[in-house]
Amino acid sequence: MSITATIISDHRQDTVEVGDDESLLGALQRTGWHLPAPCGGTGRCGKCLVALDPPEAGGTRSPEEDRFTGDDPARRLACRTYPVADLTVTLPGRVTPPASADTLAKGGGIEVPTSGKPVVVLERLRLNAPTLEDQQSVLRRMRAAAGMDDLRVACEHLSVAAAALEAGAELDTIIDTDEPALVAIERAPDRTEAGMRLLGVAFDIGTTTVAGYLVDLGSHDVLASCSEANAQGDYGADVITRITAYGAGAPLHEAICEQLASLTRQLARDADVRSEEIATAAIVGNTTMIHLLLDLDPSPMSRAPFMPVLTEGVTVPASDVCLPLHPKATLRIPPGVSAYVGTDIVADLLSSGMDRHPGVSLLVDIGTNGEIVCGGEDGLVACSTAAGPAFEGATIRHGSGGVAGAINHVRREGATLVIETIGGVAPKSICGTGLMDAVAVLLADGVVDETGRFDADAATGEAAELYRERIVEVDGEPALVLADGESAHGEPIVLTQGDVRQVQLAKGAIAAGIRVLLDEAGVEPSDLQAIYLAGGFGTYVRPLAALRVGLLPDVDPERVVAVGNAAGAGAARVLVDRASGEEAQTIVDSCRYIELSGSAAFQTFYMEEMMFPAPE
Amino acid sequence: MSITATIISDHRQDTVEVGDDESLLGALQRTGWHLPAPCGGTGRCGKCLVALDPPEAGGTRSPEEDRFTGDDPARRLACRTYPVADLTVTLPGRVTPPASADTLAKGGGIEVPTSGKPVVVLERLRLNAPTLEDQQSVLRRMRAAAGMDDLRVACEHLSVAAAALEAGAELDTIIDTDEPALVAIERAPDRTEAGMRLLGVAFDIGTTTVAGYLVDLGSHDVLASCSEANAQGDYGADVITRITAYGAGAPLHEAICEQLASLTRQLARDADVRSEEIATAAIVGNTTMIHLLLDLDPSPMSRAPFMPVLTEGVTVPASDVCLPLHPKATLRIPPGVSAYVGTDIVADLLSSGMDRHPGVSLLVDIGTNGEIVCGGEDGLVACSTAAGPAFEGATIRHGSGGVAGAINHVRREGATLVIETIGGVAPKSICGTGLMDAVAVLLADGVVDETGRFDADAATGEAAELYRERIVEVDGEPALVLADGESAHGEPIVLTQGDVRQVQLAKGAIAAGIRVLLDEAGVEPSDLQAIYLAGGFGTYVRPLAALRVGLLPDVDPERVVAVGNAAGAGAARVLVDRASGEEAQTIVDSCRYIELSGSAAFQTFYMEEMMFPAPE
Repeated sequence: MSITATIISDHRQDTVEVGDDESLLGALQRTGWHLPAPCGGTGRCGKCLVALDPPEAGGTRSPEEDRFTGDDPARRLACRTYPVADLTVTLPGRVTPPASADTLAKGGGIEVPTSGKPVVVLERLRLNAPTLEDQQSVLRRMRAAAGMDDLRVACEHLSVAAAALEAGAELDTIIDTDEPALVAIERAPDRTEAGMRLLGVAFDIGTTTVAGYLVDLGSHDVLASCSEANAQGDYGADVITRITAYGAGAPLHEAICEQLASLTRQLARDADVRSEEIATAAIVGNTTMIHLLLDLDPSPMSRAPFMPVLTEGVTVPASDVCLPLHPKATLRIPPGVSAYVGTDIVADLLSSGMDRHPGVSLLVDIGTNGEIVCGGEDGLVACSTAAGPAFEGATIRHGSGGVAGAINHVRREGATLVIETIGGVAPKSICGTGLMDAVAVLLADGVVDETGRFDADAATGEAAELYRERIVEVDGEPALVLADGESAHGEPIVLTQGDVRQVQLAKGAIAAGIRVLLDEAGVEPSDLQAIYLAGGFGTYVRPLAALRVGLLPDVDPERVVAVGNAAGAGAARVLVDRASGEEAQTIVDSCRYIELSGSAAFQTFYMEEMMFPAPE
Repeated sequence: MSITATIISDHRQDTVEVGDDESLLGALQRTGWHLPAPCGGTGRCGKCLVALDPPEAGGTRSPEEDRFTGDDPARRLACRTYPVADLTVTLPGRVTPPASADTLAKGGGIEVPTSGKPVVVLERLRLNAPTLEDQQSVLRRMRAAAGMDDLRVACEHLSVAAAALEAGAELDTIIDTDEPALVAIERAPDRTEAGMRLLGVAFDIGTTTVAGYLVDLGSHDVLASCSEANAQGDYGADVITRITAYGAGAPLHEAICEQLASLTRQLARDADVRSEEIATAAIVGNTTMIHLLLDLDPSPMSRAPFMPVLTEGVTVPASDVCLPLHPKATLRIPPGVSAYVGTDIVADLLSSGMDRHPGVSLLVDIGTNGEIVCGGEDGLVACSTAAGPAFEGATIRHGSGGVAGAINHVRREGATLVIETIGGVAPKSICGTGLMDAVAVLLADGVVDETGRFDADAATGEAAELYRERIVEVDGEPALVLADGESAHGEPIVLTQGDVRQVQLAKGAIAAGIRVLLDEAGVEPSDLQAIYLAGGFGTYVRPLAALRVGLLPDVDPERVVAVGNAAGAGAARVLVDRASGEEAQTIVDSCRYIELSGSAAFQTFYMEEMMFPAPE
C-alpha cells in the first residue's frame, strides 16, 4: 500500500505516491521534482532538507540528519525519510535541478541589475477604433499605440490584433525594441488577473560547463538557474580538440543545441512556466563555443592567423538554434573581441563594470585558456594565453574539475595538513583551487623552491615533522600526500613534482600574459585598482594562494575581487538592460587585442614567470 | 515507330518523340513545351505557328493553315501537323505558357525602366586575407568588402564565405540593400564564365486575373510573362463574395499561394532558369487580394467603416507565401492607400508617372471596382466606386471576360454591323470593350436615348435598315442582335435593354466618382492633362466609345491614354528600381482617400451620371 505525499513548493502543489521501501527523495525525483542531492542521497550533503507535517509521518529519524536539521522534528532529509503515513511535504523555496556540487555552491548567485529597461518589453496597447473618417489599417493603429513607426508585426499577430480591436479589447504585447518587432500578442485579460509575463533565458556556454538562468524581465528576478557539464565534453576537453572533432564530423552543434533545449525546459519546469512563454534569449561563450552553437566551422581559428568566422554581435531567431522558446523569440549573442577573447569575456567585463572604472584594472578569466583584459574607462587591451587545463585538473595526476569530493582547500595547522572537499565528503581528487592552495603551502614552507623543485629538508619546526611523513616518493619523484586511508577509494591522493611543473607552466603563461598587458597599458602592478577573477576557478581560488604562487602580480590581496560567474551574469544583464547591449559594443570597439603567439616579449616573460616568487 | 523532332527555341534545344496519330502540338505539350493554343488545337487561332525543316516531313498540309502561314511551305500550325519523318522544329522566339487570349494579346508587354538600380543587387566581393596583425572575422571582411557595416549574413552563408576566403576565391553575392541582408552567395567562377544571375519575379493579383513577370534585374529584360484566371474564382467573382467565403473557411489563401507557386515555376521553365535562382519578388494587388495572400482576415473591410488590417508596405520572406524562390529571397509588397485603393493602384501610378506630372491628370482602373485617382505632383485624391462587374461581363446576359471568342469591337458600316472577336474566332460572348462599343454605336445612331431606353424607330437611312432587322424582342424587352447563326454555338448573341441598364449603373458610378474627385481637386474636365486608363478593360476600350457613353468626362480623345497592365508594370518597376519603392511610399503619403459611401455629393452625381450624354 503506497503513501500519499502532498507536495508544496513556491511554484506549485502536487501529490506524489511514495512506494514501499522508497525514500521521499526517490519518490520526488521519480516524479520530476528536481530536489538537489549532490551526495547521491546518502545523507551527507544536507541539500534535500524538507519540512514534514505531521513530523511523525516521516518514520524513524536517522542519526545522519541531526547535523542538518537541528532539533526541529519537522525538518528532515528527504533521502533519509521513508514515510509511514500520508503527509504534507514543504520543499525549500527554490528547488533547483540536479547539478554538480560546484555549481550548486554557485547556485543562481548571479547579480542582475535591478534598474535598466530590457530590450524586450511588455506593452499594453489600446488601439483607436476605426470610423468612416479614420480608416487607418490595424497595423498603423498598432504602430501609433506603441509609438514605433517601423514596428514589424507578423501577419498572424495582425490577425489577433484585428479581432481584439473589433471586440473592443486591449492587447498585451511583447515587443523587441531593437528590431523593432512584435514577439507575442494576446488579448488583454478583462480584469487585472493573470496577464502576460516577460521572461528571458541567459546561457553561458563554457568549454567545460554550461550555466543557464531564467530571468523575469519585469522584476529582474532570477527565477531558476541550472548548470551542467558541456555535452560536447565527450568530443574533447579543450577547444582545439573540439575544433578537430567538428572538422571530422562530430555532432558538436547538435549536442549543444540539444543540451540548451533540455536545460531551457528544465529551467521552465523549475520556475513553473512554459518554455514557449520565454520571449528572448542571450547567450555568451568563448568564440569557439559560439561558432559550434551556430554551426560555423571554427577550423580557421585553430591555426595561424586564428581568424574567426564571426565575432560580431548577432540577433537571430531563437529557433535557429532549436531553443524551445516563443516561436518569434530572438536570441542575442553579444559581440566578442577575437578568436580567443570571446563574448564571455565581454560579459565578464559587463558584470565587473571594469570598462567604466577610472584608472587601470585587470580581469582574469581562467578556464582551459586564460583570458586577460587590462584597462578601464580609457580603453582596454586583451590577450589570451593557452594556460592549458591544469587548473581544471586535466594534466594533474589526481586532478579533477570542481566535483563533489575534490579537495578544494589545503592549509597547514602546525604539524597537521587540513584539507576540505567540495560537498564535505571523503576526498576523491584535487581540483584547481586545491592545487593552488597546496602549492602555496609548499612554497610558504620552503619545501618547494623558486624553481619548483621539492626539497623536503628545507622545512623547520612542526612543518618538518609534517613533511617528513607526508612527502614520499611516487614513481621515482617526490610527492606530497594530501589524503591517504581517509580517501573515498582508500588510495592515497598525492601532489607530485610533475603536478608542480604543470602548475608552473600554466601560471607562467597567465602571469606572462598579464605582464604583456601591463606593459601595453604602461602601468605597474601597484597601479592596478583591482584584479577581477572570473569563472569557476576564479571564484574559488584563494587570493593569497594565487598571489603566493605568482599567478597574479604582487598587489594588495584586498584588491583581488572574485566576480563569480561573471559571464552568465553578463548574459543576464544583456537581457534586462538594453544599455548593457550597447555597452558590450563599446567594450569591443575600445578593446585592442594583443596576439601573443608572435610576441617576443611574451616568450621572455613566460620563461621568467615559470619561476615561483622568491620567499618573502 | 515514332518520329524524332529536334526542337529549337530561343532558350534551349531538345528532342521530342512524336507518337503515331499524335500532332506535333500534342507531342510538345506532353513534353512540357508550353506552346500557346487558346483555340484548343483546332487550327483556328494560329498561335502555334512553327517552322519545319524539311517542310515535307510535316506531312499533309491542312486547308485551315493557309490563313496563318502564307505560302511558305516551311510554316505550319503545330496542331495541324502530323509528322511523317524526323525533322527540326523551330519555335517562335518567346514560347509563353497557355493562357487566355486576352492575356496573350498583352503578352509580356509591360514597360520596365531601363535605368535605376534594383533594391536587390549582385556584388562580387573580394575579402582581404587574414594575417596575425589582421584577425578580423569573416563577417567583418564581408561587410567591409560590401561597404555595409550592418549587412546581415546568415550562418550558412558565412561558412561559404570562410571556405572561399581560405581558398583565395572571390565571392558572387546577391544582397538585399534595403535590409541590408545577404540573399545568396557562391564562390565566384575562376574565369568570366557563367556567374550568378540576378532574377526577380513580379505579380499583379487581380480579382479576375493573375499576371506574372520574370525580370532580369541586371539587364531589366522581361524574360517571361504569364497570366491566368485567379484560382480563387471558384469561390466568388468579386471581393465581397471572396471575403465572405474566406470567413466561411474557404481555402482562398492556399489557392492563391499554390497558383503563384505554379506560375513561378512556369515562368522559370519558360526562361530556362531554376525558380530557386530567383532572389526577390514584388507583388501588387487590391487590398483584399493582399489580405488573402497574407492570410489576413479581410472581413473588417466588407462592412463600414471598411478598416483594412494592412495597407502598409511590407517585406517578408518569400517563403511565407510559399513562393518557390531562393530560400532567403524576400517579397516586397508596396504600400496601398486604403481598403479599396490598393497597392495595385499605387503601382498603376508608378507606371503612369502621374504623381510626378505637373497639372492635374486622372487615372481610372476599371475591374470589378473602379478605382480613380486625380492629381499630379502637387498631391493626389483617390476614391473607389463599386462599379460592379458589368465591364467584366458578369451581369450582362451574354457577357464574359476577355476570353477567346468574346466580341471586343463593334461598329456600324452602312447597313452592316461589323463585329470583331478576341482571337478572331467565331463569336461566343461579349466582353466589356465590346459592350462599350455596342452601346456607343446605339447612342450615336439614336436608337438608345439619353435615358437608356431602346427606340428602334429613331434610326434613319441605312441605320434604320440595319436596326429594323437587328433589334428584336427577347423575354419581352428590346435587344440588339450582335451575332446570330455565325456564332460559335449557333445561338444568337444579343445586347438587351437590361444590359444597357447595367452599363448605366456601372458607368454612372465611375463617372460620379470622377466628378467627386474633380470637385475635390477644384478642376474642370478641360483642365485634365491626361486620363490614364489602366487594367485589361482600360487597355482595350476605345476612348471614343468610353467618351460617347459618358464613362469618362468630356475631354479631347487624344488625352485618353491606355497604360496597359500598369499594375504589373509597377510591380516589376519596384524590382528593378529602388527609387520606385520610395516613390510608392511618397504616393501613399501624398494621396488623400475620399470615402464615397458617406458622400451626398456622390449620390447626386450618381443619379445624374446614370444618364447617357445628350447626342451631339
